[in-house]
Amino acid sequence: MSLILNSLATTLQPFIKRPVWVAFSGGIDSQVLLHALANLKSSKFPDLNLNVCHVHHGLSDNADTWLAFAEHTCNQLKLPLVTHRVKLTVNARESLEAVAREARYQVFKTVCHKNAVIVTGHHQDDQWETFLLALKRGSGVQGLGAMQQLSNLGHQQQVLCRPLLNTSKRAIYDYAKLHALDWIEDESNQDTRFDRNFIRHHLTPMLTERWTAFISTVARSAQHCQEAQQILNEVAEQDLQLTLSNEGRISVEPLLALSFARQKQVIRQLLQNNDAKMPSQVQIEQALLQIQQPELSTLKVKLGDHWLRHFQSQLYLTKEYEDITSWSANVILPKAGQVSLDLPDDLGKLVISTTPDANGDKTLVFAVTNKDEQLSVQFTHNNPKILPDYRQHHRSLKKVWQELAIPTWQRNRIPLLFSQNELVAAAGQFVCQPFKQADCRQTYYLNWLA
Amino acid sequence: MSLILNSLATTLQPFIKRPVWVAFSGGIDSQVLLHALANLKSSKFPDLNLNVCHVHHGLSDNADTWLAFAEHTCNQLKLPLVTHRVKLTVNARESLEAVAREARYQVFKTVCHKNAVIVTGHHQDDQWETFLLALKRGSGVQGLGAMQQLSNLGHQQQVLCRPLLNTSKRAIYDYAKLHALDWIEDESNQDTRFDRNFIRHHLTPMLTERWTAFISTVARSAQHCQEAQQILNEVAEQDLQLTLSNEGRISVEPLLALSFARQKQVIRQLLQNNDAKMPSQVQIEQALLQIQQPELSTLKVKLGDHWLRHFQSQLYLTKEYEDITSWSANVILPKAGQVSLDLPDDLGKLVISTTPDANGDKTLVFAVTNKDEQLSVQFTHNNPKILPDYRQHHRSLKKVWQELAIPTWQRNRIPLLFSQNELVAAAGQFVCQPFKQADCRQTYYLNWLA
Repeated sequence: MSLILNSLATTLQPFIKRPVWVAFSGGIDSQVLLHALANLKSSKFPDLNLNVCHVHHGLSDNADTWLAFAEHTCNQLKLPLVTHRVKLTVNARESLEAVAREARYQVFKTVCHKNAVIVTGHHQDDQWETFLLALKRGSGVQGLGAMQQLSNLGHQQQVLCRPLLNTSKRAIYDYAKLHALDWIEDESNQDTRFDRNFIRHHLTPMLTERWTAFISTVARSAQHCQEAQQILNEVAEQDLQLTLSNEGRISVEPLLALSFARQKQVIRQLLQNNDAKMPSQVQIEQALLQIQQPELSTLKVKLGDHWLRHFQSQLYLTKEYEDITSWSANVILPKAGQVSLDLPDDLGKLVISTTPDANGDKTLVFAVTNKDEQLSVQFTHNNPKILPDYRQHHRSLKKVWQELAIPTWQRNRIPLLFSQNELVAAAGQFVCQPFKQADCRQTYYLNWLA
Repeated sequence: MSLILNSLATTLQPFIKRPVWVAFSGGIDSQVLLHALANLKSSKFPDLNLNVCHVHHGLSDNADTWLAFAEHTCNQLKLPLVTHRVKLTVNARESLEAVAREARYQVFKTVCHKNAVIVTGHHQDDQWETFLLALKRGSGVQGLGAMQQLSNLGHQQQVLCRPLLNTSKRAIYDYAKLHALDWIEDESNQDTRFDRNFIRHHLTPMLTERWTAFISTVARSAQHCQEAQQILNEVAEQDLQLTLSNEGRISVEPLLALSFARQKQVIRQLLQNNDAKMPSQVQIEQALLQIQQPELSTLKVKLGDHWLRHFQSQLYLTKEYEDITSWSANVILPKAGQVSLDLPDDLGKLVISTTPDANGDKTLVFAVTNKDEQLSVQFTHNNPKILPDYRQHHRSLKKVWQELAIPTWQRNRIPLLFSQNELVAAAGQFVCQPFKQADCRQTYYLNWLA
């Protein structure tokens, strides 16, 4: 069995019972991939569920010819083919290559079975090109890891598999020649305005002429980087868990006990786990240097599209908040049943019910008299003297926030319920004593659902 | 102050009280470095202890001219110069560049003060070349980290410092031009048989013409790799300590609880800590795959110049042992004082003394009668039935080794003392009961010093 068939058989072995989809452009790489898979199906894996997907990008005048070529090829091989046309829109600062790739993956996600293994013809030369493009961007270990042989598409249980990633371009040519295969030539592959083609046509020949094994040694370096990145990811997540307090904040002390490089990783991991936009390395470093200065107890640093905020030796990651100081709403209390109020800026909703069946974490119970049938809800106050249910004496609301250790930036994001300018309750926190439950009046259950 | 002076001042600030030695070839890089340092000394750091070292490699016909140039330059700058001639011998599989570099560092180590900061003119282009050479070898993250701005020379407290590592070649040219500096051109820099010159003259121009920032993005990638490697080293050492039992062995269970990538790191770290020759990645993987099969309780795997051996859920790293089965020696017991016997294959020595003042960990005490004045020491035996001091009943020596849980490969490396074919003692382990101490006879203290 040829090297190529061997690679394919080994890589696909664990997935042999799942539907396999070949990403087929009709170029030499995917043509060799498809023929080799068809070969495997007829020789070694007769039950292989083999399918083909061709994406018509509409970029080339020849795109229709390529589609016809895909149909012809799959007819000959008696394999089911799905073709899909996409329309590409390239925005400023996007590359056509990246947009086309993204569009293809979207097609695979929707067209292929939910547990499909989508195989592509990427080979060692592609790996080197990807590596160099990462280097050109100044990437770290993750980027230098280039393409992985197996990765999750992040959609159902679909897997992206590149069984030829350790195969040389030369071996692919040899296979095509040996089996007298036809393939299409995408004329855009000659266009050296694309970085990848510049590398392919100018750099690679110079390098491989000098160092014949160069492409395969790069593949080895990339593999080392992937493995290192796996360890780095493990450690970042472990370190993050170690520094996280139970409410999703980072405790400063264990964070600063780590080496600086690991501190940076923890912050990146936190951002990543929160789907935050990743800031630059320098921004993260600056933030950490500020955190090391404990006198800055009210530090806040912009990181990407989030804020990292410091309060009482804890770090909080928050999104960018809208100004909601002018927001207010009125609520008519129901005689029976419940009323619900949507809060601004993703703060969730308030539910006020006459029965205790709502499912909030921290239900508050308050009671009103007839004159209180309408409440106003707002986030601002004029620092009234209040008597929360847990206190013996009055205290100003600002002092109450302090004694409850509410982080400063949350203090104007807690819904306050007023009845005729008198504070009834602070959602999720306390009820004022004049409004504590009493049998002779109407009782309500207040829930703040985030 | 120019960018270059700024870089220098910042990088050298922590070392400003230590003697600074410039590694001076006379080429443009070290010439700019030297002038900029002399400039700093006269402007900002008047107390700077600045010295120059020029190594005469004897490779070029012009080497004497270069030495004269160094002398002339240092005269003009009124800086102390030490010149040193080396004679290079290049063995098979060594590169001339590597041999010359190693020779230079040897000179620095001996010529410069013991707490010297040795500064070199390496810049961003050198960093890119080093990176690419590592890539060409298929290096991992450590290699791709290329050169560090600061590193220990591994000799006294000497530090190697590359303050221009983030400076572009262009900036160095500009500085030389601005200050109308002369420099020497090493004609070997044009010789593209050297990989570095091939990169410099052919690859770099093509890459920087296409991507103007390429050299500096590579520097950023290398920096990312250095930082990642720092974390990987930390984790490797932590994981190793976690899996080490108190006698320097690795416990298999905690080892196998780690991810495979981290298991590999632990083995590498163990080898490194033992100054062992590093085996290939594949060899380490093979060894670990074998360890995962618990039925192989007597596994041993060759790793570089060491053996990794498995015994009772522990891994031992041992050197390659010589066959010492045929070794034996006779010892005449002294009437007073002590006698010492050197053992073969780095096993240390035996000391037998009439007084208990020797300082071994596990001193054994035995006693003899007059007929026992000569003992023979050997490592082989014919499995005699013996009665060790800690036992009630006789047992064969092989069974005794088992019950003492002596790893199999150590069983024929324990010095056995015989008196007329009767086992007296096994060094470090036990004395046989017929030779236990008794007042009426001569008493000896047996120590095995590794």
